[in-house]
Amino acid sequence: MATTTTNNLTRPEPKALASALEALTARFGNRLITSLAVREQHAHTTTWIPTQPPDAVVMAQEVADIQDTVRICAKHRVPVIAFGTGTSLEGHVNAPAGGVTIDLRDMNRVLAVHAEDLDCVIEPGITRKTLNEHLRDQGLFFPIDPGADASLGGMASTRASGTNAVRYGTMRDNVLALKVVRGDGEIITTGTRAKKSSAGYDLTHLFVGAEGTLGIIAELTMRLRGIPETIAAAACSFDSVRSACQATILAIQTGIPVARIELLNAEQVKACNAYSKLSLPETPLLLLEFHGSEIEVAEQSKNFGEIAKECGGGDFTWTTRPEDRTKLWQARHDAYWSVKALRPGAGVVATDVCVPISRLADCVTETEADLKRLNLLSPIVGHVGDGNFHCSLLCDVNDPDEMARGEEFMHRLIERAQSMDGTCTGEHGVGQGKQKYLKAELGSEALEAMRAIKQAMDPLNIFNPGKIVPAA
Amino acid sequence: MATTTTNNLTRPEPKALASALEALTARFGNRLITSLAVREQHAHTTTWIPTQPPDAVVMAQEVADIQDTVRICAKHRVPVIAFGTGTSLEGHVNAPAGGVTIDLRDMNRVLAVHAEDLDCVIEPGITRKTLNEHLRDQGLFFPIDPGADASLGGMASTRASGTNAVRYGTMRDNVLALKVVRGDGEIITTGTRAKKSSAGYDLTHLFVGAEGTLGIIAELTMRLRGIPETIAAAACSFDSVRSACQATILAIQTGIPVARIELLNAEQVKACNAYSKLSLPETPLLLLEFHGSEIEVAEQSKNFGEIAKECGGGDFTWTTRPEDRTKLWQARHDAYWSVKALRPGAGVVATDVCVPISRLADCVTETEADLKRLNLLSPIVGHVGDGNFHCSLLCDVNDPDEMARGEEFMHRLIERAQSMDGTCTGEHGVGQGKQKYLKAELGSEALEAMRAIKQAMDPLNIFNPGKIVPAA
Repeated sequence: MATTTTNNLTRPEPKALASALEALTARFGNRLITSLAVREQHAHTTTWIPTQPPDAVVMAQEVADIQDTVRICAKHRVPVIAFGTGTSLEGHVNAPAGGVTIDLRDMNRVLAVHAEDLDCVIEPGITRKTLNEHLRDQGLFFPIDPGADASLGGMASTRASGTNAVRYGTMRDNVLALKVVRGDGEIITTGTRAKKSSAGYDLTHLFVGAEGTLGIIAELTMRLRGIPETIAAAACSFDSVRSACQATILAIQTGIPVARIELLNAEQVKACNAYSKLSLPETPLLLLEFHGSEIEVAEQSKNFGEIAKECGGGDFTWTTRPEDRTKLWQARHDAYWSVKALRPGAGVVATDVCVPISRLADCVTETEADLKRLNLLSPIVGHVGDGNFHCSLLCDVNDPDEMARGEEFMHRLIERAQSMDGTCTGEHGVGQGKQKYLKAELGSEALEAMRAIKQAMDPLNIFNPGKIVPAA
Repeated sequence: MATTTTNNLTRPEPKALASALEALTARFGNRLITSLAVREQHAHTTTWIPTQPPDAVVMAQEVADIQDTVRICAKHRVPVIAFGTGTSLEGHVNAPAGGVTIDLRDMNRVLAVHAEDLDCVIEPGITRKTLNEHLRDQGLFFPIDPGADASLGGMASTRASGTNAVRYGTMRDNVLALKVVRGDGEIITTGTRAKKSSAGYDLTHLFVGAEGTLGIIAELTMRLRGIPETIAAAACSFDSVRSACQATILAIQTGIPVARIELLNAEQVKACNAYSKLSLPETPLLLLEFHGSEIEVAEQSKNFGEIAKECGGGDFTWTTRPEDRTKLWQARHDAYWSVKALRPGAGVVATDVCVPISRLADCVTETEADLKRLNLLSPIVGHVGDGNFHCSLLCDVNDPDEMARGEEFMHRLIERAQSMDGTCTGEHGVGQGKQKYLKAELGSEALEAMRAIKQAMDPLNIFNPGKIVPAA
């Protein structure tokens, strides 16, 4: 199947693998798991990419566990794959060459919170919701929200973002420093707690988005924000994707610091109406959130309301009451489930293109036309302030014709985004699924540079082999 | 002298160098310059580090000039050093192993401005002031202001920032994509115009801050901002560095989006009073700038005023009238010249530590005590919202005793910052001057990673050799 990149990888020698598993068992006892059920859970993908389970799973509890696992695996040339919550979307945790998955979920402690500096030091397995619960009492929060309750190590590794990246940036902008276990088990420290630094090559950002292919993230220092005094939610329907995008462009251009600005296309609104018993106009919908003081939020809402009106938007509603905010955003919160309910049993794949926002309306409109032409069902949600949108493509995985049309659609979507100076992946990462699109996007020289870096940092090719960089 | 890192580097073979210069002359005619005066200008440093001129200078006019120079130099194993405006502060443009400097000042065109997307594509030699003049008519600006009218290629290469990084980030946050000439003269494209991407290793951020040691930046795609509707300036004196820092911390914590927040210590205020005929209280001074709509700016100013009062600040003045803003910021604008005037003929060195802001008051206060103890003259200005401050150390370069005390002071300052989980360089870069501090800051594993990357990306070691990464 074209979405699968099999990467003709060599599995470890059976003897070497057996030796590695023996050493790991001696070290970890029943924290080394080889049951098929557990191994399959750890290669679970939320895509059409088939599951490729590892040979074993280590349940890590502390940094030394990661170090020892890496040392043992390196000695026997056995792949090592980091696992957070398994919510990645491009087969990142698959084990195409087998090997050992390090499950980091038990490494979920907050090691330090520095409220005055707006930073914290955490273990990689903590999820964003757990972190935010921990921070709430101190009036702080971690802003990145990719939807899933993912682990922070995983979010860093895929350079994740989500609904409020338009204001707070992506994981790229919010990781201050990392500790990373390298191939000999030693630890690379990439930075300090200083907010900015010019001290040499930016190792932090080399590991952010490296999908565990250059080492295993063992500790993260993250930027935090103060919980805003006031949060307002707003909603506005538009008669076309183009007018919704125009309102978005004007809001960004005039510097309204929107915290979230999400587009639901007509198909998605329809799905939400059906699933959540709403009665929204079945036309493109923008949902917004504003953060700030009471006065700032009122000003932002007013200014956006004027822009929406200018762009032909319908009624513009905004509110700061929590229960009303939830109601207003109901459609977005239920979007995923509303899509699943459209066609129970169908396979869902989330696409992830991102284009300059001036091209967003073109890109979404042409994509909608393509879906119609190919007779495919796929609601669209978009982080439109960033030019990033996701098609939730529903296909019957047992219908080869429909799957072929699905494949064609995804290829065309990515070619369209790339022709508009955009990217095949705004926030999901490359994993296995997007490797074949990198060359068209960045050219062979960039791929050669990535290969040289991979070779320099992981000469044994033990870290998550078969991900990101396609074979030469 | 301890500030100089001589890097026992091998100069090119005389025959190889002659062959390279011959080929360059054939290619560039009188755009290949070998006069000593011009060569010395291109190795000009603004520090105590002695000038180490290159063997020749190529005046580049287009990307092909960079490519051909690199190809010729690579063939003969001759170093290549990129030059923008020569305003770097750690000997970045020195040529410790000789070689050819590529002067990029004539490559100063704006190739495209995408107003709706808030980005532009530029050549590396354009300076920030020229770029901002170009953008003004479209209501856009490029926010990074390191003081000097530096070239954007140079600013990217040192990961520069400056007074308004507290709001708009550093060069790290504002470079979207680069084109970089690699060792065989081919071009690496690091990204697209999409605002965010998870498409593989972050090559953009590998080259940002690499100081020309991994390739030569030939084109930049930069983020822009809309010129704010209203700009307000504000000033407030404090009785101590600690209370000024406390006000800064509260402002950041409560989310006031200050555009600039600059500290002048008492010594610096005194120098400014003398130089600019001002009558400011000779105690620590905070200067601020707020950007936004009229209402937002008023709200920000009011909120900061309350914080300043709470922290024991004196009269708090703010204004949106351009002429009054200039007057209020007079002291900061004249800071550099006021320092020079304190002791005409003395050598000035700017230090550049950056610490978590909770430690800033301690760091500045201990530093002031150290200056007193060592009987040294050094006013201090700080980008305090980021925890970054500069001592402008004035020493008589012909007084060995004073120079020794100056060296001791700088060592102790960096050790102090590093012991507070800070960095030896917030924005100036490593160049030659800071190499000896990297190991203490990041550990030998990080240096090994940097060496591996340098070897992978520049196996011939022709790109700005002897910078950033200390010899193993």
